[in-house]
Amino acid sequence: MSCFDPLTFRRQFPLLQKNINENPLIYFDNGATTQKPQSVLEAYQAYYSAANANVHRASHVLSARATQAFEDAREAVKSFINAASLKEIIWTKGTTESINLIAQSWGGSQLRAGDEIVLSYSEHHANIVPWQLVAEKTGAVIKVLPLTDNGTLDENKLDEMITSRTRLVACAHISNVLGRINPLEKIIARAKAVGAVTLVDGAQAIAHVPVDVQALDCDFYVFSAHKMFGPTGVGVLYGRLALLADMPPYQGGGEMIQKVSFAGTSFNELPFKFEAGTPNIAGVVAFSEAVRFLQAQQGQGFYDYEQSLIRYMTEKLQNIPEIDFIVSGAPDIPVFSFTVKGHHNHDIATALDSRGIAVRSGHHCAMPLMEYLKLSGCLRLSLAPYNTFAEIDTVIGVLTAIIHGEEAELDADKTPAAPVADASTAMLERFAAIKGWDSRHREIMLLGKTLDRMDKGERSEQTLIAGCESLAWLSYRLDDNGYYHFKADSDAKVIRGLLAIVLAAFNNKTAAQIAAFDIQGYFEQLGLLQHLSPSRGNGVQAIVAKIRQVASRD
Amino acid sequence: MSCFDPLTFRRQFPLLQKNINENPLIYFDNGATTQKPQSVLEAYQAYYSAANANVHRASHVLSARATQAFEDAREAVKSFINAASLKEIIWTKGTTESINLIAQSWGGSQLRAGDEIVLSYSEHHANIVPWQLVAEKTGAVIKVLPLTDNGTLDENKLDEMITSRTRLVACAHISNVLGRINPLEKIIARAKAVGAVTLVDGAQAIAHVPVDVQALDCDFYVFSAHKMFGPTGVGVLYGRLALLADMPPYQGGGEMIQKVSFAGTSFNELPFKFEAGTPNIAGVVAFSEAVRFLQAQQGQGFYDYEQSLIRYMTEKLQNIPEIDFIVSGAPDIPVFSFTVKGHHNHDIATALDSRGIAVRSGHHCAMPLMEYLKLSGCLRLSLAPYNTFAEIDTVIGVLTAIIHGEEAELDADKTPAAPVADASTAMLERFAAIKGWDSRHREIMLLGKTLDRMDKGERSEQTLIAGCESLAWLSYRLDDNGYYHFKADSDAKVIRGLLAIVLAAFNNKTAAQIAAFDIQGYFEQLGLLQHLSPSRGNGVQAIVAKIRQVASRD
Repeated sequence: MSCFDPLTFRRQFPLLQKNINENPLIYFDNGATTQKPQSVLEAYQAYYSAANANVHRASHVLSARATQAFEDAREAVKSFINAASLKEIIWTKGTTESINLIAQSWGGSQLRAGDEIVLSYSEHHANIVPWQLVAEKTGAVIKVLPLTDNGTLDENKLDEMITSRTRLVACAHISNVLGRINPLEKIIARAKAVGAVTLVDGAQAIAHVPVDVQALDCDFYVFSAHKMFGPTGVGVLYGRLALLADMPPYQGGGEMIQKVSFAGTSFNELPFKFEAGTPNIAGVVAFSEAVRFLQAQQGQGFYDYEQSLIRYMTEKLQNIPEIDFIVSGAPDIPVFSFTVKGHHNHDIATALDSRGIAVRSGHHCAMPLMEYLKLSGCLRLSLAPYNTFAEIDTVIGVLTAIIHGEEAELDADKTPAAPVADASTAMLERFAAIKGWDSRHREIMLLGKTLDRMDKGERSEQTLIAGCESLAWLSYRLDDNGYYHFKADSDAKVIRGLLAIVLAAFNNKTAAQIAAFDIQGYFEQLGLLQHLSPSRGNGVQAIVAKIRQVASRD
Repeated sequence: MSCFDPLTFRRQFPLLQKNINENPLIYFDNGATTQKPQSVLEAYQAYYSAANANVHRASHVLSARATQAFEDAREAVKSFINAASLKEIIWTKGTTESINLIAQSWGGSQLRAGDEIVLSYSEHHANIVPWQLVAEKTGAVIKVLPLTDNGTLDENKLDEMITSRTRLVACAHISNVLGRINPLEKIIARAKAVGAVTLVDGAQAIAHVPVDVQALDCDFYVFSAHKMFGPTGVGVLYGRLALLADMPPYQGGGEMIQKVSFAGTSFNELPFKFEAGTPNIAGVVAFSEAVRFLQAQQGQGFYDYEQSLIRYMTEKLQNIPEIDFIVSGAPDIPVFSFTVKGHHNHDIATALDSRGIAVRSGHHCAMPLMEYLKLSGCLRLSLAPYNTFAEIDTVIGVLTAIIHGEEAELDADKTPAAPVADASTAMLERFAAIKGWDSRHREIMLLGKTLDRMDKGERSEQTLIAGCESLAWLSYRLDDNGYYHFKADSDAKVIRGLLAIVLAAFNNKTAAQIAAFDIQGYFEQLGLLQHLSPSRGNGVQAIVAKIRQVASRD
């Protein structure tokens, strides 16, 4: 039995040693991507310093080294998921590409009008949109499995939903929002009973549970390196040999051919048939180090520790009465999704961020799940085994303070908005005096309080500018003297604060003044680039773009 | 005018400081992939140590940093190729994927039966096979532009080949084998005159000539990071905004959507519509450092130095009478392709490799070009501005010695083959006594001399086992006592030597003995793993697989 030591484990991740916003980073966004251990970074560096060349194509030493390392990585993945053959391991750029490959190659060649594809309400967009695209092309029909109250696929509906018309059943091993292990054994058995092909999206499961594709008896299993301590830009498609052998190529190019001629081209054997072009060699080699790294940890102690994190976190969260879990019960992996009564998800997320705590709010690329649960979004705190009980204590403490404290504090300290004339200069002066991330965040929240709300009727489809994590609205009036008067609003307080800052820059200005204003420089001077990055998350940049567009058009 | 110093430039590449086969590495395989400067490796390390998070999706600090770095990279590429808008820069995993995206999305939605796609005989497989796949699907027809004697597309055929039926003209800026700049201005003008869309494959050009997509006036321009000092797994698709806007999505998933619902899904704006899933964030960020690195070098001095390398190398090669250039004249970029009278390309390439010189032999992913030029393959020496005149002198010296010397030397030293009994042990003893790569290579060549040739009639389609760089044949006989007797042959001497080694392991053995023999361990003990890696290049592993298959089947 291995002896897993979470602190030794944690020390191998350079980024976890950093401070964020003057606090030690607490990274609870592992469902989106994990951090990377030093050994993975070193494997990448070592590859480029000692072996870099193109693979499979030349017989010089570097090419042989690169090819060996690249194919050793395939062997490592084969062993990690217990595939029967190296030919069943296809490199892709990620889970999304793996599913698209299957949808286009298998689905595009096999599906006929009226054939049924069975998905579930808790799928990630990556396991929905590729099937919608191929359904549109082939006339196949998508059916959707409902969920139980605890968020797993409802076993009782399998016989009804998976029938002789079903050609494919595709579902997540574990939903990226709900963190529940789906009853794969029963789903796959039912699919096999009707002769349907099965695809398991393992993106969220692969770092948390042992995966044995032969034991699961699925036809396809897909996952990404970057969610299991490996690099971005690498994914795996496991496919049963007999299925892969019959599938037409997906992308054409070098590597995937046997002979190319304008008179006719023949294709390479598996797995190369599906690997057109120079692959992400360095990424794959670094990923193989991540596989070895994870394999070395994944003993009983690793799972026990993760389970103890889950129990501890669940108990702590359950003690906060304002928290509403989006499904009942404790999760199977440390993914906690909830909303907070009386608070916008985005306000909680940015308040946590101002204390160095990284979490995610929004729809988590699972809009149909949000719709199914009648939510506009939720908070998600997702942990990895490098997280600690002490971090949980800190997060719970900060969360409780945000829920109970901030509101009152802000009310007691209601400062009037900056004067209308020279408002952007006033804003710069106001922020110049503020030190520290936490205070800056408080100031933004305060500004949010002072922003005039738009009337409910004004917050319409016409004025809506949707971000990923919150909603925003913008309306305007051009007066007779050529000055613009903007009004903006959001359902999240922090966004209202940011909008107040944006309006201070643009309001009561002419089109020429708006065009001339250096808004990025302004954000930078304010020290707010982080909130106002090109991220589409909060929609503020979209408001800026809209204002500029309005002023350039009229 | 910048002052380009090739030695300062060279010192920034860690791998170029290494020895290969006891000689300083001379890397003349830059057409396949370039080496990477330390700053690119550091950018990768810095990203993972200070900013790693998923992009566009969350508002915490790390995500904002990651998003900023990711979008700054897009800005860097936009500026590098002078695109009109950030929306025109799409990240892909490489040139091959860029072309597949265009072929499937633009071609799949626009091409009708009888529409014509114009390519050329010198295209890389990546700019042929995707069009064959979409032509098969749509009924479009592929027409092929011929070449002039110096290897550029024949301008005189443009009017004849590009007509009102032409919907797309796709060609390389510079062929990866010929190194000639194609007359893009005339090709694009003719395509525009008939209303055809133009795609330029810039994979081989991007590191060698300045690219201005607006000046070129092409519709699509595609290239890969790894051929311009950047990482593997990152490519660029530049597309004219109006065309991209009308194209349907290629892959479905996160990032590329605006709203997902089982009732219907809408797609994100450009460039995100074509970027489904978590992108290769670290790769893109490291690539932006490569772009900045290259941009900082690309002054007049950089081009002058490259031109002087071309002149020097051309002159030296022209002085070797046994060398036949595959097209006439000097190349425009330092890519030199030729054959050597009386020598197999693969023998020359492995002999150079045994002295630490990396070049490539074979079809270079341009089989139709080989067919057009009536060649089975060629040698390609491709340089970068970190290569030196001294390296050229060394390569020319070694090449001349191989051409003139080795043959006589080997003839004088014809040793009989190892005795039949215990042949693999004898082989191990024979190699144990040999020190140094160069001697080991000589020993393999020597063994090649002693291998019994197969009769011409025996070297047939039935016995052929094709590698990428040379051909091999295998026949066998099973005697009445259950012992196998294999015969093998190749058109390359070095492969005949390797086959002698393989046959020493398997000949005169039973099926059970063949199955039990640890061939990889044998190769390792011999110190020959490099020649016998999983590379499909030389076909020896394919022979091993075939022997095992034969013995397990009978």
